[in-house]
Amino acid sequence: MTSNILFKRLSSTISFKPTPSKSHLHKPIQGDLFPSGYLLTGIHSGVKKNKSGSPTPPVDLAVILSTSPRPTSAAACFTRNAFKAAPVLVSEEVLVRNGGRARAVVVNSGCANAVTGARGLEDAWKMVKATDALLSTPDAQTSETLVMSTGVIGQHLPITSILSAISSLNPTSSLSSMFSAWESAAQAFLTTGTFPKLRARTFQIGDKTYRLAGMDKGAGMIHPSMRPAKTGLHATLLGCVLTDAPVSPRSLQSALTYAVDRSFNSISVDGEMSTNDTIVALANGAAAAEKELEIDEERNEGEYLVFRDELTSFTQELAQLVVRDGEGATKFVAVTVKGASSYAAAHSIASRISISALVKTALYGEDANWGRILAATGSVPLSPEINPARVSVTFVPADGSALLRVLTDGEPERVDEVRAKKVLEMEDVNIEVDLGMGNEQATYWTCDFSYEYVRINGDYRS
Amino acid sequence: MTSNILFKRLSSTISFKPTPSKSHLHKPIQGDLFPSGYLLTGIHSGVKKNKSGSPTPPVDLAVILSTSPRPTSAAACFTRNAFKAAPVLVSEEVLVRNGGRARAVVVNSGCANAVTGARGLEDAWKMVKATDALLSTPDAQTSETLVMSTGVIGQHLPITSILSAISSLNPTSSLSSMFSAWESAAQAFLTTGTFPKLRARTFQIGDKTYRLAGMDKGAGMIHPSMRPAKTGLHATLLGCVLTDAPVSPRSLQSALTYAVDRSFNSISVDGEMSTNDTIVALANGAAAAEKELEIDEERNEGEYLVFRDELTSFTQELAQLVVRDGEGATKFVAVTVKGASSYAAAHSIASRISISALVKTALYGEDANWGRILAATGSVPLSPEINPARVSVTFVPADGSALLRVLTDGEPERVDEVRAKKVLEMEDVNIEVDLGMGNEQATYWTCDFSYEYVRINGDYRS
Repeated sequence: MTSNILFKRLSSTISFKPTPSKSHLHKPIQGDLFPSGYLLTGIHSGVKKNKSGSPTPPVDLAVILSTSPRPTSAAACFTRNAFKAAPVLVSEEVLVRNGGRARAVVVNSGCANAVTGARGLEDAWKMVKATDALLSTPDAQTSETLVMSTGVIGQHLPITSILSAISSLNPTSSLSSMFSAWESAAQAFLTTGTFPKLRARTFQIGDKTYRLAGMDKGAGMIHPSMRPAKTGLHATLLGCVLTDAPVSPRSLQSALTYAVDRSFNSISVDGEMSTNDTIVALANGAAAAEKELEIDEERNEGEYLVFRDELTSFTQELAQLVVRDGEGATKFVAVTVKGASSYAAAHSIASRISISALVKTALYGEDANWGRILAATGSVPLSPEINPARVSVTFVPADGSALLRVLTDGEPERVDEVRAKKVLEMEDVNIEVDLGMGNEQATYWTCDFSYEYVRINGDYRS
Repeated sequence: MTSNILFKRLSSTISFKPTPSKSHLHKPIQGDLFPSGYLLTGIHSGVKKNKSGSPTPPVDLAVILSTSPRPTSAAACFTRNAFKAAPVLVSEEVLVRNGGRARAVVVNSGCANAVTGARGLEDAWKMVKATDALLSTPDAQTSETLVMSTGVIGQHLPITSILSAISSLNPTSSLSSMFSAWESAAQAFLTTGTFPKLRARTFQIGDKTYRLAGMDKGAGMIHPSMRPAKTGLHATLLGCVLTDAPVSPRSLQSALTYAVDRSFNSISVDGEMSTNDTIVALANGAAAAEKELEIDEERNEGEYLVFRDELTSFTQELAQLVVRDGEGATKFVAVTVKGASSYAAAHSIASRISISALVKTALYGEDANWGRILAATGSVPLSPEINPARVSVTFVPADGSALLRVLTDGEPERVDEVRAKKVLEMEDVNIEVDLGMGNEQATYWTCDFSYEYVRINGDYRS
């Protein structure tokens, strides 16, 4: 037992598997998919430094205006972090004061305006008022702008520069409804993300056609737990969903709350809940006839449910983009817990597996280490939900080939390691844990844990 | 906005900061510090492969026997993971059946004997019986051995090879009380750790001198939450503490429970709770006179409290070794949350900060990114405990130089980044979060998150 046996030599080089390019996820969108009645832009407002010395400084501010003649409904889900950032507090107040009506959104990246005290609140209000002034017929009494910020915590915004950038905008000439405007707005959301996250689609309710578009940002500090303003639930990223359907404020909020729980509140990059997480939705009714009633869950439940489910599926698409572009991510992983006796139990176990550093490093190493999946499952304090003898774990290959069962009713299967390696080598990995206790299930989307994550976050502020 | 601006080029090389050597933590211990009445050994039993082709195959099995003429008390805290490994279930049963008496401990590394079904339980019992046979005057009816295993989950032990290794031992010639025997036993605990974790000390109760020695293993899957057998609390690693003080079984258990909560249950390497976490304590009274009463909290509370506090301080020393040797660790970090209105609130916030991937990568990057500390603090669902305007965050430099205040009563301080870098460059980092709400406090010990952690765990099974 000599010391050269005891002290393992740590390797000084790393065989580095690069994060794959996400460029195929960035694609043009046909103009007729975007909802009507919105004008947008993304500009440089002086928050982000022009580090690369590029001739075009980085886009860091988005402005979105509704121009619909109908009243625009607004809803939002905000972080439940105890240290809510100033823009979160201000947007909550705007929404509550106006009974769920708002016509504008202003977003900056590069500085979170979080933990910035009284001055932070003043700055957020100044962004709101400057954006209000871009609205047609602004109401002198009531702000109609929601504000979002993302970036470093604990630093003040360069507010003079931001205000001058906003007030230099001319609503009719600087903003537009073209694809390029939507894309520049989406780009203003980005911090460490590698592509602007923008999607759009049309949907039908009966014989009427409406459109949905949205953008979001994620990458790190992603484990949302958002709730609506002043009520019960709980989120961790920035997102904005816009539709030209007519929806009542109350029903827009309840549909958003339902959708966020099953989308943004079901993703994790690193298990971190931000101080700024905010998802806002606007519904301006611009595609509706003048006399058409707003969709409302009490008045026309059937239409409401179609809208809610469409919104849920759309927010899942946007949320999954965040995971695909997670900091350093080389894998896109769906963790489904089924056979649970409640949705809450399934959701909390799927969440726990999705944040496990050991599961995520094994996925990076393309190792079917199901023992770590079980250890994570068992660490959720839900003992009566878990009977080890009933638990099964399966990898569902992304290419549709035969299931790879690794544990059946608590007994390990003899696993073909060569096949397991093949299944794990695919970019998309699906893990299924069956508790064998009931009929409820939940899915979480997560990514792996790579050298690149450590590099990005060991070096974020510099 | 061209795609070469949108798609950041990800670097393909990493400037790799190596994990510092832990060799200074591995040191000889004077023979007279070890408690009397124990015989030990660490041997190769065929669980670990001899990958390096070394002439001496790796030590993977420890046997510890109490030879005291007095009855030996035993206590333990076990993982509260729902997937308790076979050795955990068997040790719990031995302890309960015997009313807190046991005279032997057998430990293997390399295979956790977890999620191994009925055969796993049989194998653990076989290890117990084989070790029972090494005791002087074994009791044919009752097993007196506690068993612990650590390593890969879901594989069966090479039980034939293990049993033949145990039965080849001769208690009087193969085992010893020498330093080399203690050290070989400590080495048998290791998986990915880089040095055997063995410590010993003497302590006084009144005019009587007793001794404490202990060994443990950790490195990864470390975020213990252990509880005593069949009762209330909760732990994640293997450890064994031996004393020659006479302590009643009941009081050994209550002192161990108290100590584990403030030591092993207050450390985190990666936030993962294992299926095997076990800490056992034996008290054989070998240093006591024949008629000396056992220490007991009801009979002699003063002596009990001295013992309990000594055990707590000793288990903290052992627990901190686990963190110092955490997988890939380059920093040793103490997180103290004070000014809390309850110990539980302080403990849960300190725990949350200690598992934050963003805090841990910032520490690896030597970046005083206190915003991440606050975001983690605020994500604990304890809103009434946290008033953002009262929270202060301070780095307490390990060299005793002036405090580095970064947030005072919710307001960011102007931080001298050059000095901050100096404070963070030290191997030991102390973070203090003051909630400003009460007088309770708790400390958690953790490490940073490095490339080396990803390397070790992306490549553990191969």
